[in-house]
Amino acid sequence: MKKLRFALSLALFTGMPLLSQSQTTDVLESPDGHLQVRLATDTEGHLSYEVNYKDLAVIRPSRLGFLLEKPHMRLQRFLVLDRQNASADTTWEPVLGEVARIRNHHNELALELQDATGSGIRVMVRFRVFDDGVGFRYEFPDQEALDHFIIKEEVTEFALAGDHKAFWIPGDYDTNEYLYNTTRLSDIAALDAVARERDIAISSPIGDNAVQTPLMLVADNGLYINVHEAALVNYSTMNLVLDKATLTFRSHLVPDAVGNKGYLQTPAHTPWRTLVISDTPEAILASKLILNLNEPSQIEDTSWIRPQKFMGVWWEMHIGKGSWDLASGNHAANTENVKKYIDFASEHGIDGVLVEGWNEGWEDWFGNWKEDVFDFVTPYPDYDLDELTAYAATKGVSLIMHHETSGSVTNYERRMDRAFQYMKAHGMHTVKTGYVGKIIPRGEHHDGQWMNNHYIRVARKAAEYQIMVEAHEPSHPTGLHRTYPNWLANEAARGNEFNNAPALGITPEHQTILPFTRLMGGPMDFTPGLFHFKLNQFVPERTTVVRTTLAKQLALYVTMYSPLQMAGDLPENYRKHPEAFRFIVDVPVNWQDTRILEAVSGEQVIIARKDKESEDWYVGGITDEQERTARITFDFLNKGQSYMATLYKDGPKAHWDHNPEAHTIETRMLRHGTPLKVTMAEGGGFAIKVKAVK
Amino acid sequence: MKKLRFALSLALFTGMPLLSQSQTTDVLESPDGHLQVRLATDTEGHLSYEVNYKDLAVIRPSRLGFLLEKPHMRLQRFLVLDRQNASADTTWEPVLGEVARIRNHHNELALELQDATGSGIRVMVRFRVFDDGVGFRYEFPDQEALDHFIIKEEVTEFALAGDHKAFWIPGDYDTNEYLYNTTRLSDIAALDAVARERDIAISSPIGDNAVQTPLMLVADNGLYINVHEAALVNYSTMNLVLDKATLTFRSHLVPDAVGNKGYLQTPAHTPWRTLVISDTPEAILASKLILNLNEPSQIEDTSWIRPQKFMGVWWEMHIGKGSWDLASGNHAANTENVKKYIDFASEHGIDGVLVEGWNEGWEDWFGNWKEDVFDFVTPYPDYDLDELTAYAATKGVSLIMHHETSGSVTNYERRMDRAFQYMKAHGMHTVKTGYVGKIIPRGEHHDGQWMNNHYIRVARKAAEYQIMVEAHEPSHPTGLHRTYPNWLANEAARGNEFNNAPALGITPEHQTILPFTRLMGGPMDFTPGLFHFKLNQFVPERTTVVRTTLAKQLALYVTMYSPLQMAGDLPENYRKHPEAFRFIVDVPVNWQDTRILEAVSGEQVIIARKDKESEDWYVGGITDEQERTARITFDFLNKGQSYMATLYKDGPKAHWDHNPEAHTIETRMLRHGTPLKVTMAEGGGFAIKVKAVK
Repeated sequence: MKKLRFALSLALFTGMPLLSQSQTTDVLESPDGHLQVRLATDTEGHLSYEVNYKDLAVIRPSRLGFLLEKPHMRLQRFLVLDRQNASADTTWEPVLGEVARIRNHHNELALELQDATGSGIRVMVRFRVFDDGVGFRYEFPDQEALDHFIIKEEVTEFALAGDHKAFWIPGDYDTNEYLYNTTRLSDIAALDAVARERDIAISSPIGDNAVQTPLMLVADNGLYINVHEAALVNYSTMNLVLDKATLTFRSHLVPDAVGNKGYLQTPAHTPWRTLVISDTPEAILASKLILNLNEPSQIEDTSWIRPQKFMGVWWEMHIGKGSWDLASGNHAANTENVKKYIDFASEHGIDGVLVEGWNEGWEDWFGNWKEDVFDFVTPYPDYDLDELTAYAATKGVSLIMHHETSGSVTNYERRMDRAFQYMKAHGMHTVKTGYVGKIIPRGEHHDGQWMNNHYIRVARKAAEYQIMVEAHEPSHPTGLHRTYPNWLANEAARGNEFNNAPALGITPEHQTILPFTRLMGGPMDFTPGLFHFKLNQFVPERTTVVRTTLAKQLALYVTMYSPLQMAGDLPENYRKHPEAFRFIVDVPVNWQDTRILEAVSGEQVIIARKDKESEDWYVGGITDEQERTARITFDFLNKGQSYMATLYKDGPKAHWDHNPEAHTIETRMLRHGTPLKVTMAEGGGFAIKVKAVK
Repeated sequence: MKKLRFALSLALFTGMPLLSQSQTTDVLESPDGHLQVRLATDTEGHLSYEVNYKDLAVIRPSRLGFLLEKPHMRLQRFLVLDRQNASADTTWEPVLGEVARIRNHHNELALELQDATGSGIRVMVRFRVFDDGVGFRYEFPDQEALDHFIIKEEVTEFALAGDHKAFWIPGDYDTNEYLYNTTRLSDIAALDAVARERDIAISSPIGDNAVQTPLMLVADNGLYINVHEAALVNYSTMNLVLDKATLTFRSHLVPDAVGNKGYLQTPAHTPWRTLVISDTPEAILASKLILNLNEPSQIEDTSWIRPQKFMGVWWEMHIGKGSWDLASGNHAANTENVKKYIDFASEHGIDGVLVEGWNEGWEDWFGNWKEDVFDFVTPYPDYDLDELTAYAATKGVSLIMHHETSGSVTNYERRMDRAFQYMKAHGMHTVKTGYVGKIIPRGEHHDGQWMNNHYIRVARKAAEYQIMVEAHEPSHPTGLHRTYPNWLANEAARGNEFNNAPALGITPEHQTILPFTRLMGGPMDFTPGLFHFKLNQFVPERTTVVRTTLAKQLALYVTMYSPLQMAGDLPENYRKHPEAFRFIVDVPVNWQDTRILEAVSGEQVIIARKDKESEDWYVGGITDEQERTARITFDFLNKGQSYMATLYKDGPKAHWDHNPEAHTIETRMLRHGTPLKVTMAEGGGFAIKVKAVK
């Protein structure tokens, strides 16, 4: 009988330390008492943690530790030397954000550990438990036994309590631009997903059971769990590899050129491993846990950091109207064309105009692993930057710089100072960087420690020049826009440009998943606002389409937070729908408050946000390929205040596939508590401007 | 019978194409007709070359070609499309050098080849035959069939005609600081040689049959052959791997982090593969073939480039008087100490003072593969650079900058502009760079394409700032000081500091081998001039010794050409021998003429050089551990001119081991043709200043 029970335990917890064997148990609770973390070491010193939420298992006992390359050893068995408890309840104000003030309320436990195998190495494991989740990290204090060290792998486990529904993209060292997959954990098949992709420039998939974070999980028992990391500084990006037998994820860091995964020197620490946990999906989106686990702004004077909207000489190249390169004979970034964008932006109060393909080198940049590719200071001869600088200034518009590195980062770093000096000499304050290509230094990956340091280096150096940055093709964001608020946004996911990708494109559900995944880490330059849906406008044989309605494109400005938003389409396409374009003109990109009204990953997202500068609210709602009816109660409006609502919604017969442009614009008065029902078409959505009047 | 002959052929030429099977034969001769190159393709299109000198075989038929990674193919079978002949006979003047004018006299043959396997790829093989050797390279012209391509290996063979005596160091991706080995080819055992070394910081040996170039070979039939390369630009360094069965070397390029060996884009070409060939050893040292195969100066205004001598706060750290780092409590690079060097240099007309350990970071720099190591602009608090700048200026001395990168080249490249600006702001015009450590980008090697490009990038950027450069721990020099004359010298071999290395040190023969090997590629900063021979001056338990006599140290200023020469020892050691130091003060570092009077690798080297600025001559002679008598006939002096010779020679009982400091100084009058007999002690030498008088 005893024997049978032992066998059962093994079957249930294969590879897991049993809490019953544990030597030490520490318990840490969230301020509201709903979340509980237990830490224990077994008889051999293996350290594990488990997480429960309202008595439901979130993370079953899961091990913590490292494989080190230098010194060459396993760092997985510990003696607990000491434990320290702490609490915090503070508020802080982000420079730009979804809300004006953020509360940081958590309890903390730090275990001081010593390697049990005799090396003398000391490690701290620090847990912070918030009402909406858990963060923990490893810290390596200054010590005699450890100075410089090399990580072979971080062995952090996330043993899940059930075969949850997961929203995932394949684990990869170089790209996060995959379409999301929705399966049970046991059905994750990452390499199949990779095989379906055809339009990603550079990918280095890890394996069939490997996924990236932010990973969104929905449990059958009604729990919502988001796994990610915060403050990814001087460390490799974490992927997760699932052991399907135990439903346990293990961390898998991105290696460097020689297979190592991290070079650290004490004192050092890892990023925070984060679990945002709730029994409502809306609370996941409302969580500020990841921001709270990042460091405050390292930029002292932030007065020059501005939220902004911009247009760009960009989409016309994607859809074949023009080209990036001059040799094509169809060069889009020419002085006259850019002036048209400046004119249109100026007419409509859009802050900036991005110009891609402005500089020499586009004839020979992609796919060749070429190091000396762009110099970032030499415009094409048909692009008169001095003239445009003066012209833009008279129109009250800023030009936005484009630094496509082609992945040749050694080249960019050599030239970055001069490139930023060149920008400032031409009155430019914002740069879009790009990393389309295999990385140089060769053997490094987009998501490795070296590149993660590079992205931060760019943000820091840009700040020296009072330049704002948004990066395309970087590693996944982890809330670093708190620490470097001039780092406004990133792409780092499948953005709107993938509508033009022939293989998979962008499915209607995609934008409802992004807030639960990619956006957990920070603002995305999704480049919304496409008003022309069949992408054969200039290339008749092209069959790609934007799989949303027009109203949904408007809604994205609200559902997808970013302090930097593009009006992605061409001026001529906006001129066909001037009333709808009005919403893009009006919608702010910086907020004093945000309410997640309804949000189900893969189905719908409805969010209300209050302008940072006024009493006006904006509401956006989007659906997947299903028609849905949104029921909004305006209980977030000020009592006693009248509001004029302008509602941009799908037309009666709108449909992402055969009638995407159909939309209607209505106005009506609203007050606190007014109910509103809005029907979203298949692949549709709505946007509402709620203007305080009188 | 026929069968037997076939078998014999195979035994003699295993793996070799037989000329008798050849389809095409081209013959190219040197201007004097002594050297002959034959090119042939066999029935399958394999291209081979052979070299003969006065009817003696130098290189037996040896294949040419490549393995490519992208496109993935062998590029070894060719159709000959065309052949072009050319000749040149010009002279040019080096900015700095051993002679005032250099004759470039050669015949040239370029074969235009097309890949015989149908790719359409075209390659040129260009041979230049001089009276003193052969150079050849591959060229990839601009073409439809090839744009960007990746080299997996260059397959260039050097099939030698006998089991020659070879002066070699082990093939290695990261160091050329080995002691030389002298064996028959068949006795090369590189890994045994590696195993004997104990004092080389970073090494990546290739294999037991792998050696580096310049490789000096002496054949039993009286031929002298030096194998090397010229103009190593945008390409990996070539090592050679011997097939002992056929006595054939094959090129082995240094790989990058992912195992590739070269990233090229058409039009492109390889470095020249060089064979300096003669029947006298002196002609090998006199050869200007490698310089002739380099491009002319790319620096237009060279008026700021100056030859120079310097002292340094450097050796005292090696021998334990002081330390590089401040935390030691014994920091050598402090203001007062540096002033003493400035005073001494100023008193003796020495141009510069190098100061190592001047900047923050030396407490934590070596062996940790640390990226953010030095910033090159932050002096230690006890080093007042502003004060020293002013002080040096009043004394007519220039401070020489030290940029130790620790191998963290990404860090250096980011900071290089500011570092050079900082130098200029402090009146410094010369920088010693250093690469002690594993390279970052991690996975790259000191001798790979990326680093070879880096060294040139430093020379070019330094030239923008009118800064002169000498690099320590770079890849082997290949004559690029012609193209970048501000790149004055390199270490790139076992220099004088290795006298203090406990395991092997520097053997007495070493300096007689260097001119035949390392120096074939260009000037070396050997840092001669050590006057104190037992290196326990400050650390009594130290057992290392300088294994030369004092007179030999003086001779090195003549036998080892460099436009940048250090007076390596401490001022207090020079003050003990002021008369001998006078030679170091007097000896020029730039010459209008050079005569190799006698030179046998591993035995002795006697060279006479004529000052660039006067009619004075300087003669240096060195021997290995054998006592030898030099017999000089001064037939290079002007007829009818009187000369006062000051002879610095070993004392009667001088000996490198037990009496190294013993020397005598004599004067005597000389005329054209005067004979002189000088005895060199074991490990000794002599130096003569021959001053034109009246």
